[in-house]
This record gives sequence, structure tokens and C-alpha cells, in this order.
Amino acid sequence: MEIAVLGAGSWGTALALVLADNSHKVRLWSHNPKQAVEINSVHSNEKYLPGIKMPEAIVATSSIEEALEGMDTVILAVPTKAIREVCGKIRDIGKKPLTIVHVSKGIEPDSLLRISEMIKEELPAELINAIVVLSGPSHAEEVSLRHPTTVTVSSENMDEAERIQDLFINHNFRVYTNPDVIGVEIGGALKNIIALAAGITDGLGFGDNAKAALMTRGLAEIARLGVRMGANPLTFSGLAGIGDLIVTCTSVHSRNWRAGNLLGKGRTLEEVLENMGMVVEGVRTTKAAHQLASKYEVEMPITETLHKVLFEGLPAKEGAELLMARVRTHEMEDLTNILNDQ
Amino acid sequence: MEIAVLGAGSWGTALALVLADNSHKVRLWSHNPKQAVEINSVHSNEKYLPGIKMPEAIVATSSIEEALEGMDTVILAVPTKAIREVCGKIRDIGKKPLTIVHVSKGIEPDSLLRISEMIKEELPAELINAIVVLSGPSHAEEVSLRHPTTVTVSSENMDEAERIQDLFINHNFRVYTNPDVIGVEIGGALKNIIALAAGITDGLGFGDNAKAALMTRGLAEIARLGVRMGANPLTFSGLAGIGDLIVTCTSVHSRNWRAGNLLGKGRTLEEVLENMGMVVEGVRTTKAAHQLASKYEVEMPITETLHKVLFEGLPAKEGAELLMARVRTHEMEDLTNILNDQ
Repeated sequence: MEIAVLGAGSWGTALALVLADNSHKVRLWSHNPKQAVEINSVHSNEKYLPGIKMPEAIVATSSIEEALEGMDTVILAVPTKAIREVCGKIRDIGKKPLTIVHVSKGIEPDSLLRISEMIKEELPAELINAIVVLSGPSHAEEVSLRHPTTVTVSSENMDEAERIQDLFINHNFRVYTNPDVIGVEIGGALKNIIALAAGITDGLGFGDNAKAALMTRGLAEIARLGVRMGANPLTFSGLAGIGDLIVTCTSVHSRNWRAGNLLGKGRTLEEVLENMGMVVEGVRTTKAAHQLASKYEVEMPITETLHKVLFEGLPAKEGAELLMARVRTHEMEDLTNILNDQ
Repeated sequence: MEIAVLGAGSWGTALALVLADNSHKVRLWSHNPKQAVEINSVHSNEKYLPGIKMPEAIVATSSIEEALEGMDTVILAVPTKAIREVCGKIRDIGKKPLTIVHVSKGIEPDSLLRISEMIKEELPAELINAIVVLSGPSHAEEVSLRHPTTVTVSSENMDEAERIQDLFINHNFRVYTNPDVIGVEIGGALKNIIALAAGITDGLGFGDNAKAALMTRGLAEIARLGVRMGANPLTFSGLAGIGDLIVTCTSVHSRNWRAGNLLGKGRTLEEVLENMGMVVEGVRTTKAAHQLASKYEVEMPITETLHKVLFEGLPAKEGAELLMARVRTHEMEDLTNILNDQ
């Protein structure tokens, strides 16, 4: 079948490759006409996936109308802050109900909405057949090299989630289902906060013991918030929870880790964002999670400390030392609270 | 106060340093007289902690009788397979009840006993005041450099666990308590299996996505067995579970990961063990866990596959591909089983 992929960044392009590997045709929308020309003429996307050859089954276009023409299934692969704008375009073109698979990881500051909730706000019900989220430990670069990768799909409509599973699954790209949309979206979004913090402790030279402790405590605070928001605590022990957290905190591919690493080495947030040249979702997500912690009255010490470092002028080293020195002697009390919060 | 540390490998020596930093005197037993002389004369332990200066508060001896003379508290820091032998010596010398803090990570093949159970078998009740386990994400090299580190102590006697917490805790070395002895011992032992497997996938060049998936699925199978053996499932979400798993699978310091890495690159088990020159606990633990899975009728696909690679001649690449291709589409069913097993 033919599928539209909106967004020709590294992840949108890698997912287009998976679909093409499975003998589907893909219409790949880029907001940048030059990029569309590059993909159609020389079959590469050098800025985002250098060295990867793209098959002819992937046809790019800079016209979103052309990308959507006749489509039932749309992969939405744009940065969190472009979700509303792109959904607005889908609404304006909208002819028939769509299954929208979003693959973004973030929470909107101020509205505090998850991605699927933002999509529902922007699109009228008659244009939505289903909203599916695809998440998990999946660096685009490795997917494009056909390295083994596992992801989770989730939806309120599990029949559609299973159809999307069938579209993507192949020998290298294993797709699991999980009915817990809230948990999958929260896990994917909030791990970027912990990756930023892990980058900072690495940049400061704190070592692997400290990073493992930070990741463990980080998962606990993500789960604490997620459960309060209605997620299943087990989701955080799965691919979209600890799996994605591990890959984002320990891989050199991770933008959020790299941004944190520069912060730990003494750069300012402005310098870091300029240096990266790509979106660093964790920065916006820290703002949103700080607001969520307050709204749901959940203790999130790593998020709070990172918020102080990013937006309130706390030196990174002081923040990291504060976190390590935090007095909590009885680990189980804290973990038990996760389940009691349900 | 004065404390005996039995075993002058990297971990015993690093813990002696923590105790000395806290103004305790340490008698450090080494089975190797030359090593004892090196520690007492030039104040270093170059084979195990190169470049680290040892304070005069740490006095080494190759006489275990001398090390134990007058002591109430003993840190047992020897490889799993030396536990029974060293406990036998303690028994023969035994004058008064001791608090024994063990810091080893393993399960005994065939008997399938945890370390604290082995200690109980070897020492008469009148010689045991308490048995405490200390575990968590803690590479000795980093502890000796005073990098921030967190560990968990656990015991059936939580008053003694808290006394041990007080002995070790300082600004760099944070100690938490957890009453779940079974979970803490199982988490520490079985993560070495997953580290071996992670080393194999890294050696094969599978990438970070595959490793994160392996670690996620690995934690699930450890928890599944642990819960069946009586552990609290939350322990596996804590420092002695996921924390230790992360550090062991992702750090270059990890012997088990390094051994797996060599296997993934095509070396035989014999070559790898010879090359390492130190104990690789994960190899013995794989044998024990394979037996435990059968005894408790728990599905442990990673353990089973690794057992085939280590002991039944399955090529590492085939084993890793088998694991990745395993069909299980509904992630939650599997995770839910962990809690239902209680």
C-alpha cells in the first residue's frame, strides 16, 4: 500500500526506509523543496541520514497536499513544536478520515498536552480514524543501517495499532503493541530530560556509577508522574520506558545527551542550542514536566534541578552535586510510592 | 571503629578506601603475601586499582586469623566461588558472633543458593550476628577515584543494615537500605548474564537500539525469576536491579561485558577466560540461572540462549539473531506476568 510520511528529518526518513523495505510506496513530505529534489534526483538525504541510499519507492514532495492525496495512513514525523502547524495543514486539506501515526516525543509547555491530545485538538473528529503512537529505543541512524531495533505502538484503537504493527514489522524492525497510550507517550517524552541530565553528569566527569544512579532515579520519577496521569506502571519497565531511556542516555547518537554534555562542560544553554543545529526536545520537555510536577503534586527532583540549571541560572556542577547528596535512605519507600499513587 | 575486609581485589580494596575515608581502621586480608607487603610498604594495590594511593589506616595481612582478631564486622569481598572456602576459615577461627557484609554477585550452580544462603550453610548460627548484602551500580575503579556512587544494603536484620549504612555513607558514596534480600541478591547476580549477552551483541556490531532492547527484556526475565523466588518486583526497578544492570552493560570497566564482547567477535569461551585473567562471574551465573529457570518453571529466553552459546556450541551470531527474531507481539502481556507471578 501507499503511505504518507510527513517530515523528512532523520526519523521520518528512517521510517520511510522501513516501509519501503516492506514493499510499501511512500510519499515523503519535506517543508524544504531543495531536500525533496535531492531525495527524488540523487536518492539521498545527506543532512539527516548521510551515506544512506533511498529506494525509488520513496517519492518526496514539498507539497503537503500532494503528499496526502488519496492517503488513509499518515506518519507524522515532525518536531513537537511543529505538530499544531502541520495538523492545521492536514485539517485545511482534509477530505477523509485518516489514521495518524505520530512518532514525536514531547509534551507541550503551558497546555501540558501529550502529542495525541494536541492532534485531537487540531483535527475535527470526522478527520480522525485513529491516532497511533510509535515509540521505543530507536536511533534513526541505526534503523537506516538495518540494525536490529524494537519499538512499541499504542492506540485507543488497538485494531489500528495492530494494522500499523503489520505495516512496519520486519526481520530487523520488531514492533510490539501496548494499549497504554499515556505511558508510552510520557515515557518517550520525559526520558529526554534524564538524557540531558545524564549528559551533564558525563560532561562533569562524574562517571558511570553516577549516571546509572541518575537513570534509575530518573525512571522512578517519570513513572511517579506517569502513574499519577493514568499510565500503567509496567509501561515504564518496557521498551518505551527503560528501553528508550537507556538508549537516549548512553548512545553517542542522542542529541539530548550531547546537549547536556556541552552544558556539563560549561557552555551556556544559548551556545549549546546554537551548536546543535537540530531540535533538542528535552529543553522544552523540562519546562513542561516542571509544570506537570506542580500540577499533579509529584516530587521530581531531577526535573526540578534541571529546570533550575536550564532556566534559573544554577551552575550545572552545583545542580549535579545537589542531586547526588539528596538524602533519602530508604529506597523502597520511594519506589513503593509509585504503585501507591495509582 | 575497626573493620575486617576479606579480599583485596578491586572491590574489597575500594570498599576499604571508603571505610578509611570515614575514619575507620581497616584490616585488609589478601591470600597473597606479596600483595599484603605491597599495600603495607608502598601503599598501593597496582594490579587491582592502579594509581590509587592507599592510606595508612588500611593495614593488610595475609593471615586471615590476624585480620579477624577482635573484629565484630567483616566485609566479605571474595569471588563467589571462594565464598565457601573463606567462610570455612572464619568458622575454624570463629570466636564470637560476626556481622558479615557480603559484596559478591553470583548464584552457586547445582545448589542454586544465593550468597547469603551459602554463608548460612558454612557458618554455625552462633557465629552469625547478621548477614548483610551490599550491592548496586558501583565500579570499583570509580569508587576509588571518589566519583559519586550509590549502593543498596539489605538484610533480614534491618538494624544491622542501617548500622552498615552508617559505616559506609559519605558525600561520594550514598548508601540506601532495602529489606528485600532476595531481590537485591538476584538482581546483582543475574545482571552479569545480561552484560555478557550485551557484550556479544556489541561485539557483533548490532548497535545501541538492539542493546537497549536486550537490556529491557533482560530486566523483565530477571524480575520474572526473582518474583517467583520471593523477591519484591520493585527491587528490580531500583539501584540493585536496573541501576546495576545499566552500569554493567554500558561501562567499559565491566568484565562481563568485555568477556561477551570478545565472544561476539568470534573468540571461544576458553580463549576469553584466559584473556581476561580475572573472574567472569556471569559465566557461572548463566549455568546457575539456567538451572533456576528450569526449577521455577520460568521462561528466560536470554539466559537460555546464552547458555547454548557458552556451553552447547551455538554460534554467538545465531544466538543473537534468534533472540531478536523472537515473536512476541504484545509487550504488556509479558510484563503483566511479572506481577501475576507473585
